[in-house]
Amino acid sequence: MRPAALFRDPPEYPDEGRTGVASAALTTDAHVVRAMRRALELARLGPAGGANPQVGCVLLGPGGELLAEGRHRGAGSAHAEADALSKVPEGAAAGATAVVTLEPCDHTGRTGPCSEALIAAGVARVVFAQSDPNPLAAGGAARLRDAGIEVHAGVLAEEAAALNERWSASVRLGRPWVTAKWASSLDGRIAASDGSSRWITGPEARADVHRRRAEHGAIVVGSGTVRADDPALTARDGTGALLPHQPVPVVVGHHQPAAGAAVHAHPRPLLSVRAHDPHATLVAIAETGARSAFLEGGPTLVSAWLAAGLVDELLVYLAPTLLGGDRTATLDLGVATIADQRRLHVREVHRLGEDLLVVARPAERD
Amino acid sequence: MRPAALFRDPPEYPDEGRTGVASAALTTDAHVVRAMRRALELARLGPAGGANPQVGCVLLGPGGELLAEGRHRGAGSAHAEADALSKVPEGAAAGATAVVTLEPCDHTGRTGPCSEALIAAGVARVVFAQSDPNPLAAGGAARLRDAGIEVHAGVLAEEAAALNERWSASVRLGRPWVTAKWASSLDGRIAASDGSSRWITGPEARADVHRRRAEHGAIVVGSGTVRADDPALTARDGTGALLPHQPVPVVVGHHQPAAGAAVHAHPRPLLSVRAHDPHATLVAIAETGARSAFLEGGPTLVSAWLAAGLVDELLVYLAPTLLGGDRTATLDLGVATIADQRRLHVREVHRLGEDLLVVARPAERD
Ligand SMILES: NC(=O)c1ccc[n+]([C@@H]2O[C@H](COP(=O)([O-])OP(=O)(O)OC[C@H]3O[C@@H](n4cnc5c(N)ncnc54)[C@H](OP(=O)(O)O)[C@@H]3O)[C@@H](O)[C@H]2O)c1
Ligand SMILES: NC(=O)c1ccc[n+]([C@@H]2O[C@H](COP(=O)([O-])OP(=O)(O)OC[C@H]3O[C@@H](n4cnc5c(N)ncnc54)[C@H](OP(=O)(O)O)[C@@H]3O)[C@@H](O)[C@H]2O)c1
Repeated sequence: MRPAALFRDPPEYPDEGRTGVASAALTTDAHVVRAMRRALELARLGPAGGANPQVGCVLLGPGGELLAEGRHRGAGSAHAEADALSKVPEGAAAGATAVVTLEPCDHTGRTGPCSEALIAAGVARVVFAQSDPNPLAAGGAARLRDAGIEVHAGVLAEEAAALNERWSASVRLGRPWVTAKWASSLDGRIAASDGSSRWITGPEARADVHRRRAEHGAIVVGSGTVRADDPALTARDGTGALLPHQPVPVVVGHHQPAAGAAVHAHPRPLLSVRAHDPHATLVAIAETGARSAFLEGGPTLVSAWLAAGLVDELLVYLAPTLLGGDRTATLDLGVATIADQRRLHVREVHRLGEDLLVVARPAERD
Repeated sequence: MRPAALFRDPPEYPDEGRTGVASAALTTDAHVVRAMRRALELARLGPAGGANPQVGCVLLGPGGELLAEGRHRGAGSAHAEADALSKVPEGAAAGATAVVTLEPCDHTGRTGPCSEALIAAGVARVVFAQSDPNPLAAGGAARLRDAGIEVHAGVLAEEAAALNERWSASVRLGRPWVTAKWASSLDGRIAASDGSSRWITGPEARADVHRRRAEHGAIVVGSGTVRADDPALTARDGTGALLPHQPVPVVVGHHQPAAGAAVHAHPRPLLSVRAHDPHATLVAIAETGARSAFLEGGPTLVSAWLAAGLVDELLVYLAPTLLGGDRTATLDLGVATIADQRRLHVREVHRLGEDLLVVARPAERD
């Protein structure tokens, strides 16, 4: 569990009164909202950071009774709606309400379109939370309406959007979402003068980093960090055991990891990018199916991505310590004068053991 | 008013159940505790940061009724006990209870010893909060007891100690208390590459700095900051008007302010320290009567004082912005390897507008 934030802006979940309920009738339809909450829970069980969003579906009978639950289990497997429909006997979904966290898709990918499956099953009503940001997949709602199905959009839309925020942004931006992280002293240093940096932050902060690694599709470091720290680039729990989802390990730079480097023991094959250009790196990352990248440094890599405007979220773990010296968390960001400063918007502040975590995003993007 | 902290460790005031009440009888003596709260309020009206502590006194009649209130108004003026006694007719304090925030003094300075004044007035009982940390002034409690007066120490002791924390520490350390402050970007820079730094933090953070300047006896900058920013070194309110207490302005370095420098318009005469040694600077500051110094930079000055172990409290105002480049908040602190890092303990975290304020102290000192 994530510890409570000292500060969070905006609130993580809107209170019931502010949920994005689309119609007055549905506001009082408490069992539909309850079903959507359950669908969101189901969605969260699916893998994050991959090519596909997390989606959950609950099928309710005409009296509001539970018929089946479904969820998406990752690229190539059934969509949540199909998963739920597969659990009821043929014909049993006639007149049902399908409650889905994401607008049913209308395209034929590795699986058939969900809109067609819902029409074929004879459902009477479809309620979804988030509209599909993917132009290739959108159109599901229209197709369902054309088939005479009652469609309601926007129930718990904010929660659903928060769930797939990185995936949605990646669809919109046409590249993986980028989260950059560093752990520094209060005076902004990531290592002592001799390069030693273990440890600046404490165990709670380091556990938080591992949890967030597991929420991304790829984990990216520069060749300098591999040389200095020989990181495993895996997402691990407190005991050192691998977490269920492992991001693709990516090393950027002409110097590639030595034969014995820890990263070669990663459960997923290493992506070596023998170039410096962040855009090219993102293209290579997208080709692995990852929709999000977790930049873990070092300063050379992160500064280049920041300067290129390619960081969507920044995690700064601040340890209560001073280091001084020249191992700064960032290098040159092209800020010649104060008017050029790169303003951020702080979204959350957490206390993790003795450390602070500041979660911020570029102000112009927010 | 200071905004609520996002985080505060330890809590600013202990709850009633944990107050440092010395005897079981007094715990139930609610009017004495109430009188001490009032005495603390009176104390807070006195000047902070000067040679003397903030002290308040309430005189209660034998039935617990209020006889008089007193407070200390600064060096050379009457102590709180004498101030209160001066407000009752001769003989009217006989059998009274004197409730004082600090142990009555037993020495003859610019005013006579309070212990004698209380004995002469015939008070029956003296209740105080904080014991006198000053070996020159201590002994008041013993003298009162020797005179047959009932003495209780420690009522609301933690609150009283917090009130005069800097003064008490200064007495203990034999030098002024030192608070260092900087305002930096999240990546630890205090200016852009060209030296411009107005503004990194917002108006709320800057107002907080002014309020804290007024709580210190002296405000100290290096000659580089005077050259770069031409600061007034005054404590001002939101309208630019001077706050009641003004710290002594101190400029350290061989280059002294130009004739037209803003600091010459300061209401108190400038203290020029034409040396670099922090210890020597503190001696010169102590000679002005200041018991605390507010170090406002720049990086050269603050780093030298940090390296010398002469910073008691650190205020880091963190703005949600990135600057990169070489204008770091600290320079070399003599931390060659990670084992030498200068650990701090975070006591408070505040959100001031868009900025964060981290209040920390050296861990070994805490
Ligand atoms: N505290 C933390 O959060 C943290 C995190 C990571 C690292 N670190 C510390 O950071 C230090 C290493 O710093 P670093 O800056 O050398 O590491 P780095 O950024 O990991 O590696 C720099 C190298 O990455 C390659 N590279 C990738 N993209 C680049 C670009 N756009 N421009 C230029 N080069 C690019 C270059 O490699 P080629 O020369 O091979 O082409 C370059 O030499 C170590 O002390 C490590 O402990 C700290
Ligand atoms: N954001 C903030 O919180 C903040 C606060 C203050 C300043 N600043 C910025 O800081 C920059 C100025 O930095 P700075 O480091 O040059 O300023 P500084 O520390 O104010 O001044 C440096 C000068 O102070 C003297 N000095 C005093 N004690 C010293 C010691 N122990 N060792 C060496 N010299 C000592 C020396 O002067 P002599 O050569 O005359 O002997 C030295 O050249 C400006 O850009 C200013 O805007 C930012």
